[in-house]
Amino acid sequence: MTDQDYMKRAIEMAKKGGGWVHPNPQVGALIVKDGRIIGEGYHVKYGQLHAERNAIASLRESAEGATIYVTLEPCCHYGKTPPCTEAILEQRIARVVIGSRDPNPKVSGKGAAILREHGVRVEEDFMREECDQLNPVFFHYITKKLPYVVMKYAMTADGKIATKTGASKWITGPEARAEVQQIRSRYMGIMVGIRTVLQDDPMLNVRIPGEKSPIRIICDSGLRIPLESQICQSARQYRTIVVCAEERQEKKAQLEVMGVEVLAVPSVDGKVDLVRLMHLLAEKGIDSILLEGGGTLNYSMLREGLVQKVIAYVAPKIFGGETARTPVAGAGVQLPDEAVKMKLSEIHKAGEDLVLEYECCI
Amino acid sequence: MTDQDYMKRAIEMAKKGGGWVHPNPQVGALIVKDGRIIGEGYHVKYGQLHAERNAIASLRESAEGATIYVTLEPCCHYGKTPPCTEAILEQRIARVVIGSRDPNPKVSGKGAAILREHGVRVEEDFMREECDQLNPVFFHYITKKLPYVVMKYAMTADGKIATKTGASKWITGPEARAEVQQIRSRYMGIMVGIRTVLQDDPMLNVRIPGEKSPIRIICDSGLRIPLESQICQSARQYRTIVVCAEERQEKKAQLEVMGVEVLAVPSVDGKVDLVRLMHLLAEKGIDSILLEGGGTLNYSMLREGLVQKVIAYVAPKIFGGETARTPVAGAGVQLPDEAVKMKLSEIHKAGEDLVLEYECCI
Repeated sequence: MTDQDYMKRAIEMAKKGGGWVHPNPQVGALIVKDGRIIGEGYHVKYGQLHAERNAIASLRESAEGATIYVTLEPCCHYGKTPPCTEAILEQRIARVVIGSRDPNPKVSGKGAAILREHGVRVEEDFMREECDQLNPVFFHYITKKLPYVVMKYAMTADGKIATKTGASKWITGPEARAEVQQIRSRYMGIMVGIRTVLQDDPMLNVRIPGEKSPIRIICDSGLRIPLESQICQSARQYRTIVVCAEERQEKKAQLEVMGVEVLAVPSVDGKVDLVRLMHLLAEKGIDSILLEGGGTLNYSMLREGLVQKVIAYVAPKIFGGETARTPVAGAGVQLPDEAVKMKLSEIHKAGEDLVLEYECCI
Repeated sequence: MTDQDYMKRAIEMAKKGGGWVHPNPQVGALIVKDGRIIGEGYHVKYGQLHAERNAIASLRESAEGATIYVTLEPCCHYGKTPPCTEAILEQRIARVVIGSRDPNPKVSGKGAAILREHGVRVEEDFMREECDQLNPVFFHYITKKLPYVVMKYAMTADGKIATKTGASKWITGPEARAEVQQIRSRYMGIMVGIRTVLQDDPMLNVRIPGEKSPIRIICDSGLRIPLESQICQSARQYRTIVVCAEERQEKKAQLEVMGVEVLAVPSVDGKVDLVRLMHLLAEKGIDSILLEGGGTLNYSMLREGLVQKVIAYVAPKIFGGETARTPVAGAGVQLPDEAVKMKLSEIHKAGEDLVLEYECCI
């Protein structure tokens, strides 16, 4: 087994953390001595031990002189748990192979430096890209101070998100819809424009027992959301933020009585300033948002460079219709060269539907 | 090796015929004796020997008592070449394993019957589905007396075939565009609506040296095609059929002088009756058509059940735009349940673009 093989195994371990470690990153660690894996662990749940400490806890023999592979630079500060660098030194581990750097500029490199000062051999940036991929949300949120935004839509093979009458139930099949429920539970927020609320009166929750629903964020410049909408009616059950550009005091008070948080954001051309909004949401600790449309909001978010990933569900059917809605509308670009460029990163099938994942290139 | 393995090999042989056998089907044949392949062949080119005769010609030993695997029922009539059943009997082949049945109802089953009458063991419908797939155009054309129609479009990931200004050069990358040139050479006709001619002034030819360009068919109810369009200007070089609902004698005469064939077809609501048109084109020997839009014609063709396959090129970019055009427009369906249903049959990448192939379910 090579260093690569061991790091791959550490990456597999890290993935076991799934959504449970949120808002912490997924991290895996592997301890190897004389060509044998003698310990392994991953960050299991927010507030609990880090991967390195779990790997150490799994040891059945001394790790003196061993190598530890960690997908993320070991922490060197007291947080919810004591620093991992200390644990590594206590075990007299001789070599540390690190994947991702700590994205927090205040801490980045410090863990590695402390280990080196104590005579440990440290290799950084080892399979860094693969390790970074474990935590795109975490890295984006910490370095940009903005939520990681995933735009998701379901369309027909001819690019329609509804028929010309506005009917959209259902475009995709049951497998795809079940998958979307899972996706929703992975992000901290879910955002739609007011038109989507007015047209579809959605709940935007997760209907899988035991799974957490995201915070619902409604972009509603004119504060038009109906008090009788499902969103408002369930605001005590599911945290809800309605974002407006013009604060109408009476409506605001009515909404707040129902448990809705009203967030006034400066406007640009009468519309919510989306860059400001994203910074405000990041300050509230919202590290990730699933953007579910409609077309106007989707276009504005893309144009502002606020979308990191696009997930398109493509159903094997055709609606046609000159006036049927498409996933991204708004003003649109003038010339093909001005398009929002992306990179296809994954394809899979969900039942009869196809799921295309793109990374936005900014 | 099993019967399956041998038939698979025969199918591979058949594919070598590529576009050259047109309008004949692609056929492969394999002769096996005592567990050894002693002969193989395929239909190489229209007018030349059939697959069975090529397999026999490749023999270096007697085929007496051997088995022949053929992807299509051997012919039993004199066409451009003598019947293959005779050749099989002459060789004293003992067993014939057949994939597809002859689609011509006048002939279907006759080849197998003649062989049986002469004491040959015959197995029919062996891996028939795979064998039928070799020749979808051929089977469709002969059984339905209609051209096999493939609708092709290139769109962005948000379902746009042009920006809001109508600009569409280019949506896909060079690899995808090269692939489309190959696709064009595979079908006998290429069809667009008059709006596409007015907007893009296309040539609709194949620009690969040595490859045949398809017959250009323009759906132009009101006979509006400009005499100065590239299509009209090049009508002597590339066969061109302009289809109209109202025959305007003067314009018709002008077009005919330029080498354009004008085909008047009865109208339905002022538009060309597409079912009638397709039957007329089939009578002219056009067995296959690549349909390249626009949205109105695409929708009408789909709604009439005249499209067998859809090939969608999806570029990794987003145009947005409330008014940007989409691949299928027209009236469109009212409810999701009324959608044109399809089955995803193939996915591949062409450069950075994705190519989705669907079979229409009728």
